[in-house]
Amino acid sequence: MTSVDRWQLPDGIEEVLPAQAATVESLRRRLLDLFRAWGYELVIPPLVEFTDSLLIGLGHDLDLLTFKLTDQLSGRSMGVRADITPQVARIDAHSLAPEGVSRLCYAGSTLHTRPKSLMASRSPIQLGAELYGDDSLAADVEVIRLMLATLDAAELQSTITLDLGHVGIFEAVLDSAQLDAGLEATIFDCLQRKSVPDLTAALARAEIDATTAELIVGLVDLHGDDSVLADAREFFAERAPQALAAVEALADVATDIRRQRPDIRIYFDLAELRGYHYHTGIVFAAYVPGHGQALANGGRYNDVGEVFGRARPATGFATDLKALMGLAAAASEPKGAISMPDSDDPELLAQAEALRAAGEIVINTLGGAVDVRCDRELTDQDGSWELKPLERATP
Amino acid sequence: MTSVDRWQLPDGIEEVLPAQAATVESLRRRLLDLFRAWGYELVIPPLVEFTDSLLIGLGHDLDLLTFKLTDQLSGRSMGVRADITPQVARIDAHSLAPEGVSRLCYAGSTLHTRPKSLMASRSPIQLGAELYGDDSLAADVEVIRLMLATLDAAELQSTITLDLGHVGIFEAVLDSAQLDAGLEATIFDCLQRKSVPDLTAALARAEIDATTAELIVGLVDLHGDDSVLADAREFFAERAPQALAAVEALADVATDIRRQRPDIRIYFDLAELRGYHYHTGIVFAAYVPGHGQALANGGRYNDVGEVFGRARPATGFATDLKALMGLAAAASEPKGAISMPDSDDPELLAQAEALRAAGEIVINTLGGAVDVRCDRELTDQDGSWELKPLERATP
Repeated sequence: MTSVDRWQLPDGIEEVLPAQAATVESLRRRLLDLFRAWGYELVIPPLVEFTDSLLIGLGHDLDLLTFKLTDQLSGRSMGVRADITPQVARIDAHSLAPEGVSRLCYAGSTLHTRPKSLMASRSPIQLGAELYGDDSLAADVEVIRLMLATLDAAELQSTITLDLGHVGIFEAVLDSAQLDAGLEATIFDCLQRKSVPDLTAALARAEIDATTAELIVGLVDLHGDDSVLADAREFFAERAPQALAAVEALADVATDIRRQRPDIRIYFDLAELRGYHYHTGIVFAAYVPGHGQALANGGRYNDVGEVFGRARPATGFATDLKALMGLAAAASEPKGAISMPDSDDPELLAQAEALRAAGEIVINTLGGAVDVRCDRELTDQDGSWELKPLERATP
Repeated sequence: MTSVDRWQLPDGIEEVLPAQAATVESLRRRLLDLFRAWGYELVIPPLVEFTDSLLIGLGHDLDLLTFKLTDQLSGRSMGVRADITPQVARIDAHSLAPEGVSRLCYAGSTLHTRPKSLMASRSPIQLGAELYGDDSLAADVEVIRLMLATLDAAELQSTITLDLGHVGIFEAVLDSAQLDAGLEATIFDCLQRKSVPDLTAALARAEIDATTAELIVGLVDLHGDDSVLADAREFFAERAPQALAAVEALADVATDIRRQRPDIRIYFDLAELRGYHYHTGIVFAAYVPGHGQALANGGRYNDVGEVFGRARPATGFATDLKALMGLAAAASEPKGAISMPDSDDPELLAQAEALRAAGEIVINTLGGAVDVRCDRELTDQDGSWELKPLERATP
C-alpha cells in the first residue's frame, strides 16, 4: 500500500477544509437560531440505533441506504442513520411523548451506502425541522414557510422554485384503479423514476383496461404552473373524484405561500412521490437554477411514531448543509489576526485572553515564524505590552 | 417485537433531549469560538474513512474500538471513526500540507464498539484542537493552556487537577532494560492498567534480573505532587539517565502552567501511558472531583502523518461534549415566547419575522392551544398587530 492509497477518501465521502468549514459552521448556527426563533427545540439523536427502531415502516429504499453493524454488546443489528427524521419521530413518540403540538429540530451527519443520485454525497450533514401533533394544512404551510426562511438565511442569491405535490392524489388513483399490490409497487417505481415507457409497458403487461391505464398515465402529465390545478380538477372529476380534496389542498397551500412570498415560483407535480414511501400528504421541495437536486425537501408523514406506541400527525423538512455550503454566502471572517511572542508573562497572557474574548484571533509565534494571518502584534514597549501594526521584513 | 423493544437504544448510545441539547449546542459554540480566537481553524472530517487511513500506526486499541463497514462502491473496508485526531493528522499531512505551523480544531460524533471504561459513552461528541509543525515544549504548553481555557469556558464550578506524564520516561526505562518486544507489550499493558501484581508476575515469569525489575516496578510509585520530580531525578540518575530529559520537560511545563494558573492542582504520573499507543512525548489530562474519567486529555504524537507521506510534529487535546454537558452551566435560555394566531396576513408574518430576527421565539397557534412556553401574544387591535401579555384562562 502506498501513501497515495492511504489518503484517498471513499467516493461521495467528503472532508470540509477550513474556508468552507467556517461557512458550514456559520450556516449551521444561523439555521438552528432560525428554527429556535420559530419555536423548534433542538434534539441530538444518536449516530446509530437498532435497525428495529431505525427502519420500521419506512420502506425498502431507506433500508438499502443504511449501513448495518452488529452491536458487540447485545448481538443485535444496528444501523448508521441514513436519515434523521425517523429518529426524531421516535423521540417525539416515545422520549418526549407530549400531549399537544411539539416542534423539534436537529443537525447531524448521516451516511448512505450508495449516493441517492449521480452527484449526491454519501455523507450529507442533514439539518431539519419537524412539527408533530397537528394534522392541519396550517402546519404544512408553517413548515414550508420555515423551509423558505431557511434558504433565505443561507443567502443563496438565486430564485427559488417551490415544487408541490400530494401523495393523496396517487393514492386516490390507485383506489379508483383497484390494482393488485405487486402492480401498485411497479407503478410507484415507474412514477418515482418518471419513466412513461416503463409505465406503459407495465400496464400493458398486466392487461389493464384502457380507461384505468389512461388515468394512471395521465398523472405523469399533470405538472407545471397553476393551470395544472384546473386540468387536474377536470381530469379527476369523473375518473377519480377522491383525488379532488388533495388538489384543493395544494391550491390552498399555494395561495397561502404566495400571499407572503409573491417572489417564489410554484411548480405543481401531481405525480411526485418523493421520500422513502413514508409520506402521507403534501410533499414539497425547493430548487434553484443550475442545481439538479432539491436543496431542501419534506412533507407530511403521519403515524410513523405508531410503531413506537403513539400515532402522531407529522410534517417537516430537511436540507443538507454540505449542499447549501457551495451556494451560500461565505462566512464573513474578520480580516487579520494578532501575533504574540511566546512568553509566560501573566500580563501578556491576560492581555491575549482579553483580546480573544473581544473576538480577536491571537496567535502565539512559539518562537518561530509569525502566522500568515497576522496583521498586528503584541510587543513589549518599555515593560508593557502594546498592540501595534505588524512590521514584516520586506523581501 | 413489541413497541418497548423498538424504542430502546443500544447501551452507551445516548440521545440528547431539548433542555440538555441547548446546553450542548451553547457549549459547542463557545468552545469552537474559543479555539478560533486562539488561531485554530475548523475542519470537518468525514464520519467514515477507509480503515487503511483511519487505523494506520495507531495501535490495536483503536482498531478494536472501531466499527468496520464494507464500502459497497469499492469493496474496501471502511471504519466509523472512533477518534477524530488521526483524521485531522491526515488532513494536516495531506489535504492542507502546510510548510509551517498549522492549528486545526473539530467537533463531531464518534462511535466505539465497546465503552472505553465502565461508565463511558459509546458515542461521545468529540471536540478538540491540534497543533502541527512545532516540536517545542512551548507548543505543548499552548495546548495545555487551551485545554484549561476550554474547561473554564464550560464553567464547571470545580477545581481542576492537571495530570502530567511523559511517554519518554517509559521509553527510557525500556531502553535501559533491554527487553524483548513481547515482554515490552506485556509491561505496557500492566502499566496502562496500573496493575502491580500482574507486572511483578510478568517480570518473574520472564526471569528478569532484580535491578531491572526494580527499575520497572519503581515507575509505578512515581506519581503525586512536585516531590515526585525530585524522587524521579534521584531514581533515574544511575538506573536510566536517558529519562532525565523527560523529567526536566515535565518540570518546565509545570512551571509555565503554574505561573499563569496558580489555582490549578498539578499531579505527576510518570507511569502514565494514556492514549492508543500513539503518544510520543508529554501526555496530559484534566480531572474534576467526583468524575472518575478525565474530562479532557491529550499529548504529543509526532509523525502520525508519516504514513500519509509527511512526518510532522503534533500535539493536541480532546474532550467529550456529552461528558461536559452534565457538569457545565446550563444554557441561558431567554424566558418566555410569543404566541401568534394562524393567519396569512403579510403584516402579521412580517412582524413575527422581525421579532424572531430580534431573538424572540414566536410560535404559531395553528388554531389550537397556545404553546406552554408563551407569555406574550400578538393580537389584532383595531386592524394592527400588537404585542400584549398573554391572558390565559384561569383554571
